[in-house]
Formats: sequence, C-alpha cells, structure tokens
Amino acid sequence: MSDSARIAELEAELAALRAKYDAPAVSPLAPEAGFPDLPIIGGVTFSAASAGVKYQGRDDVMLAKCVAGSAVAGVFTRSATRSAPVLDCQAKLSAGTMADKPLFILVNSGNSNAFTGAGGRASVDAICTAVADIGATDIANVFSASTGVIGEPLPHDRIVSSIQGLHDRLDAGAAAAAAAAIMTTDTFAKGAAQSLEIAGTPVHIAGFAKGSGMIAPDMATMLVYIFSDVAIDPTVLQAMVSDLNAGSFNAITVDSDTSTSDSLMVVATGAAGNAKITDLNSPEATQFATALRAVMLDLAHLVVRDGEGATKFLTVNVRGAADDASAKKIALSIANSPLVKTAMAGEDPNWGRVVMAVGKSGEPADRDRLSIWFGDILVADQGWVSPDYSEDLGADYMRNADLSITADLGIGDGKSTVWTCDLTHQYITINADYRS
Amino acid sequence: MSDSARIAELEAELAALRAKYDAPAVSPLAPEAGFPDLPIIGGVTFSAASAGVKYQGRDDVMLAKCVAGSAVAGVFTRSATRSAPVLDCQAKLSAGTMADKPLFILVNSGNSNAFTGAGGRASVDAICTAVADIGATDIANVFSASTGVIGEPLPHDRIVSSIQGLHDRLDAGAAAAAAAAIMTTDTFAKGAAQSLEIAGTPVHIAGFAKGSGMIAPDMATMLVYIFSDVAIDPTVLQAMVSDLNAGSFNAITVDSDTSTSDSLMVVATGAAGNAKITDLNSPEATQFATALRAVMLDLAHLVVRDGEGATKFLTVNVRGAADDASAKKIALSIANSPLVKTAMAGEDPNWGRVVMAVGKSGEPADRDRLSIWFGDILVADQGWVSPDYSEDLGADYMRNADLSITADLGIGDGKSTVWTCDLTHQYITINADYRS
Repeated sequence: MSDSARIAELEAELAALRAKYDAPAVSPLAPEAGFPDLPIIGGVTFSAASAGVKYQGRDDVMLAKCVAGSAVAGVFTRSATRSAPVLDCQAKLSAGTMADKPLFILVNSGNSNAFTGAGGRASVDAICTAVADIGATDIANVFSASTGVIGEPLPHDRIVSSIQGLHDRLDAGAAAAAAAAIMTTDTFAKGAAQSLEIAGTPVHIAGFAKGSGMIAPDMATMLVYIFSDVAIDPTVLQAMVSDLNAGSFNAITVDSDTSTSDSLMVVATGAAGNAKITDLNSPEATQFATALRAVMLDLAHLVVRDGEGATKFLTVNVRGAADDASAKKIALSIANSPLVKTAMAGEDPNWGRVVMAVGKSGEPADRDRLSIWFGDILVADQGWVSPDYSEDLGADYMRNADLSITADLGIGDGKSTVWTCDLTHQYITINADYRS
Repeated sequence: MSDSARIAELEAELAALRAKYDAPAVSPLAPEAGFPDLPIIGGVTFSAASAGVKYQGRDDVMLAKCVAGSAVAGVFTRSATRSAPVLDCQAKLSAGTMADKPLFILVNSGNSNAFTGAGGRASVDAICTAVADIGATDIANVFSASTGVIGEPLPHDRIVSSIQGLHDRLDAGAAAAAAAAIMTTDTFAKGAAQSLEIAGTPVHIAGFAKGSGMIAPDMATMLVYIFSDVAIDPTVLQAMVSDLNAGSFNAITVDSDTSTSDSLMVVATGAAGNAKITDLNSPEATQFATALRAVMLDLAHLVVRDGEGATKFLTVNVRGAADDASAKKIALSIANSPLVKTAMAGEDPNWGRVVMAVGKSGEPADRDRLSIWFGDILVADQGWVSPDYSEDLGADYMRNADLSITADLGIGDGKSTVWTCDLTHQYITINADYRS
C-alpha cells in the first residue's frame, strides 16, 4: 500500500471511531421537520435574551407573560434536594395567585440554583422582585425556574439586568426563541401544539420543554411550559394536569436519575372566550384534557428522543400484571436496566435481559406465564422461547430506530406504558468525557 | 509533515482511541498478585473440565466434593425469574441433606439454564442424577449452578459426559482451576482465604466467586462458593451466612441489574476437629463469623473490581440517615446513579450529582443538613459548597483508582456502606458492541 493510501485508510478508520463515540451535534431521533409552528395563544407573550449566566453566544433566559386572570397549575420534582426556585413555585401555587394582575414565568439555563443554601433563596427573590417591578404585578404572580449545574451560586445580577430588555421585547410569536433559551445538553428545541373547538369556540394549546439527561419518572418531570387560551377554573386545571402527568412525563426515563429542578407549568389565559370549564367531569373538560394530554405526550416523547446519546426510542408495554402500579414498576425495571438499554443500542434482540429485568423488579411474576414481544414478534411464550421465533427475525426488527418491548405477565389486569431510550457510548461521552 | 510521520501520528491516535473504548483484557482494578494461594480445606476436593457448553478452549465446568457430614448453607437470588438450578438448590437446602453421604457442587459457565421452561428442570435432574450415581451419594446432596446466557436450552448431555472425568480427577489443590472454570465475562478469577484458631484448633476458610455484570444487591449475589474445615451446626451456619450476606454481597452493585442465577453456598466439613459450634452467640461462632465475613467481603470487593468496564472502585458511605435501611437506600441511589458513575469515570468531582442522587432516593433528607466528602475532603457542608473546598482539590483526589464518597444526612443515626464501580465506555463496549 502507498503511504497516501495508508493515510486515507487510517483517516477513515479514525472518522468511523469518532462517529461512533463522539456526542452527536443533534440527536438522530430529532424530528425531521424541526421545531413546529406553534399557534399564537391569546394572552401570552414571550421573549428570550443572552444574560451570560454560563453559556456564551446564545440565549439563556426566557420570559413569558400571561394576562391577568390566567389560571395556572404546576407539578414539580419530589426530590428531597429540590432547587430554590422549585420550592418558591410550590409555595406560590399553594398560596394562590392574584387574579387581577398579570402572571410571569422567568427561566434561566446554565445554573440550576440547587443546593445553594440561603443564597439560592435570595437569588430567587431578587429575580422575582425585579420581574414584579418591571412587569407591574405582584411577586406572588412571578414564577421562576433554573436549570444547569448544581451547587454553584446563581449570578442573579446578570439575570436581573436582562429583565427590562426581556419585558420590552415580549412578543406573541416568540415561543420558539423561548424554547431554545432554556436548553442545556438538549440537542434540539422541543415544542408541541393542539387546536380544538369547545362548543364551537376555537381553543389552542402550545407548549415547549427542555430535558435530555437526569430524566426519570415517578418524581416529576423536567422543565415544561404549556400555554392555552382556554377558560378554565384553576382547581380543575391543577387536577387535570396532575392526572395527565402520571401517564406522560412521569412515564418517561432516560437514565433513572431525577433532576432537582423538574417543573411542569400549565397556564390558561381564558382568551379563547369559551364558557369557563368548572367541572373536571364535564364533556368540555374531557375534550380539553384529551388535547392537553396529546401535547404533554408529544413533549415527553421529544425529551426521550433527545435523551443523552439516544439512538433508539423504546416503548415498554407491560400488561397482565397484578395491578397497574405493579405493571409500572416492572416497565420501569425494564426501561432503566443498563443491560436492556445497551442491548437496544447494540441492536441485540437479547430477550433474556428483559426476563432478568422482570425478575429483578420485586413485583409478582410467574416465570412460566411470562410472554415477551419485540414489536409484533412473539419472542418468549409462557416461560420459554417461542417455537416460531428466530434470532434473525429479532435482529431484523432491532434495526428500527423506534422499538417496542411488550411483556405480558399473565397473572392479572395491570398495565402500564413507559418510554425510554437506549444507553450508548455517546451517553458516556457526554457525561464522563467532559468536565461539567 | 512527512507521510511517515503522519502515518505514525494517525496510528498513535487510533491506538489511544482503542485503549479508551475497547473492553480491557484484564480489569485495571485486578489484584496485582493474581489468584491467591488458597489453603487446603480438609474434606474438600475440586476439579475442572472443558465440556464445550458454549466456550471453546477453556474449562467451563467445575465439580467440588465435600465429605459426608458437611454442613451446608446458601443464599440465592430473589429474582422472580430465577433459574432452574437455583430453584433446585433452594428446595434441597430446605429439605435438608443426608449427613451420612458426601456432598457435591457442580457448576457450568456459558449457559444459565434460566427461563428454559420444563426442559430446564429436566436438565438439572439429569446432571444431578449423573453426579449422584458416579459419586455414590444421594441426589439430595447434589447442588448445581449454571451461569451464562439466559433462555437457551442447556446442552446438559455435554456436562453429563464430563462428570466421570471430573470425579476421577478430584484434587484438594485444584480450587484455582475450579474458580477459573466458572468465569463468564470475568477478566480474572477471584479467590480469598482466612485462617484462624478456634480454642487452639487451626481452622481454614477458602472461597471463590464469579461475577462481573448483572450485579446488584438486595436480591442476593452472584456465584460464590466458600469452604471451611470448621465443625459447625448447619442451622448456625445458615443463620451466620444470611446475616453476613447483607453487609457483603448484598452491599455491592455493578450495574443495578440482578442475575437470575445468583448463588452463594458455604460448606463446612468439620475436618478441622474443633468442638462443633452449635450456638450462634458463642465466642467461637463470633470468631468464625469474623473470619468468614473477611472472606465474603474480599470476594464481594473482587467482583466489583472486575465490574464490567470498571476503572474506579468506589466506596459509598452514608451516615446520619433516619435509620440503617434508609441509609442503604440512599447509598444504593448514589452507587447506582449513571450520572454519579460516569462522573467517577471522568474523574470529575461533580458533587452536585451526589446531591441529586440523595434527593431522588425518596428517603428522608434535609437539604440544609446534608454534608458530602470525597475521601477526607469536605466538599459540601450543611447544604452548600464548603468554603475550604476547591475544584482542584477534588480533581486531584479523583485521579485515585480507589475512591470514597461519604454523605452525612445530619438527621439520625442510620448508616450503611455500599461498594460499586464506575460506568465507562468499556461497559458499553462489553454490553452493546458484541452480540451476546
């Protein structure tokens, strides 16, 4: 071989190794269409700015303003070490907002203001006071969130300095910029929307989310903001959001690790002018909940599709379990198993690892009633490999980017669905190769 | 640059990438001294053979024989999908062995005989019957174990064919060969020993273990066989082993995944001739338990040191928790967190991830009373970074191969210690890059 041929060969080998191991610029599971065109939500405006909290050359703070009279609901991390802004939001939601004044949400990326002692509380107060002053509202109506590194004091002065500019530029069409400003290790901005008619009145829902690592369910979520022009009672909205959260954001996991900052907030301005929804069991509430669920599920799935290092989107269905709670524990045991997740990454139809994950869950199971499917392919039937299954069939299926595993325990009616991604070299590259 | 210099540069770059990502031939945490010289245990002989269950060109089956009258104790996986040999061992231990006949343990690697339906049970019976026939004992005294791939029928005929040869070659000095025969993804054979005197009588303990992946505590262990010449009542031995297991094998985790085959068996032949230990609370029992604990802990730590892809050995101490059980859950939450484990791999003193793992455990914690140490370095004190801590101090410490994290919850007297390893590219290489 000539020297130049050898050089070309070595360079190709190096490029192949780097493609395999380096963190991707954009997740291969990102939607091809990019960020969606979100509908304008009457009564809501957004802006974004570069405050230089940590990142340079990009927006890292966003402000949203919702008109006076908006209903607000929220779900937050149950972490025992939750951040200062999470504690503040929870306190404000329990105390109730002031209906005659506008409501603001301010979010920064780059620093989570978590585990920052008394200074963390002071930072939240400084930011919320500045927003209340500039926005002519009460501090009870100002919600904040911070996402990024844990344990470093938040340089809140930089954020406070940016608030006047943010307020001056508030714009109904700036949701995409707001969604981009709250990203951390995200490789794409995540948005979703639904439109519906309630008794002839057009109603819109639009939301965005950030999240990529430190994502696990059963505590709460990541950062998610959803806005609607629907008229709805705040108590009804809170009940609806808490209920829908269980089957959407609380049913995803990237790495079984739970953030100290997870927050989901839903604001409804009432600008649509529908007859106010005041009964959770009314047909109108059900109609709105169905659309809201679709937005929440879309955003939850997008977070998984941007899971750190993800190359596969995996739906885990468990049925036939003792009850729904048991089914969810089994589904999470499968979805969080490093051996199941690495098998998916390696396109290895290693159903033995699914058996292991069912077995380790600690939930009622009978080995000889357990059946497992990859997609529609019956792999294991009642305690042993299915006679119709072949390794080639399984290996072919594994080449898809979207995969599903179904486990039927065969002992009851409990069922649950959980979404996750695979565990790849890129996850390690993102979390071990760079100092954070 | 000349072509030859460029070729040398590219080759060096490729070699560096391969060293980083490829699975190591031997764990960098393996003991430098290699497999220890285990003492001869009176009344116990071993042999190993190549039966060709799956691996070629290496031993994959081992037989141990213990004299009539030996006391035997065992602890097994609590997985709901445990293997056929585990179910058989558990049944035989509850039924009791026959004291007037010798006792055998047969173990194969390469196939776990788990999730193999009725055929799995038949394989165990075929193997145990053959051992009982050739070894002139009762089937009640024959214990077996299988480790390797899940869900494939065990080719038990190959094992049965090897039994006569194994029996013919039984040898008191062959423990090292037996330890090597049961390895799967292990990169080194693991042995440990202790000698002591009980009332002037020399007593010996020697054991070996296999285990590298699918290692998680709170269910049971991996494959561990420990032999002693001590005279001890079987009931006392079982109580002692179950108790010691909680603080040794049940306090380690490699990847939070629990094997379907985990088995720990301890056999005591009585050949030492000490006055038989019949009281768990006697000084002699305490003396023996201390030595047995040392062997169990050594083996448990060796399993972690051979954790798939491990480059760091991590001791997680939790104290000041609500109670010991709570401390153990918090310690496991830290030890199993992918973000903590990748931080260790990256030598990143990212104590924020430890805070996160404490917070997600679901256990009682007060953010403002939490303190964290890396080794002896106080990192976080009562809810915020310690004024004496510097990132350089933490980064220097992280370069050690053996690391410790201590978390003091500051709310009670509960304490627990758990051992684990880091999560590296090599773990992904071992579990995703090769089809298993």
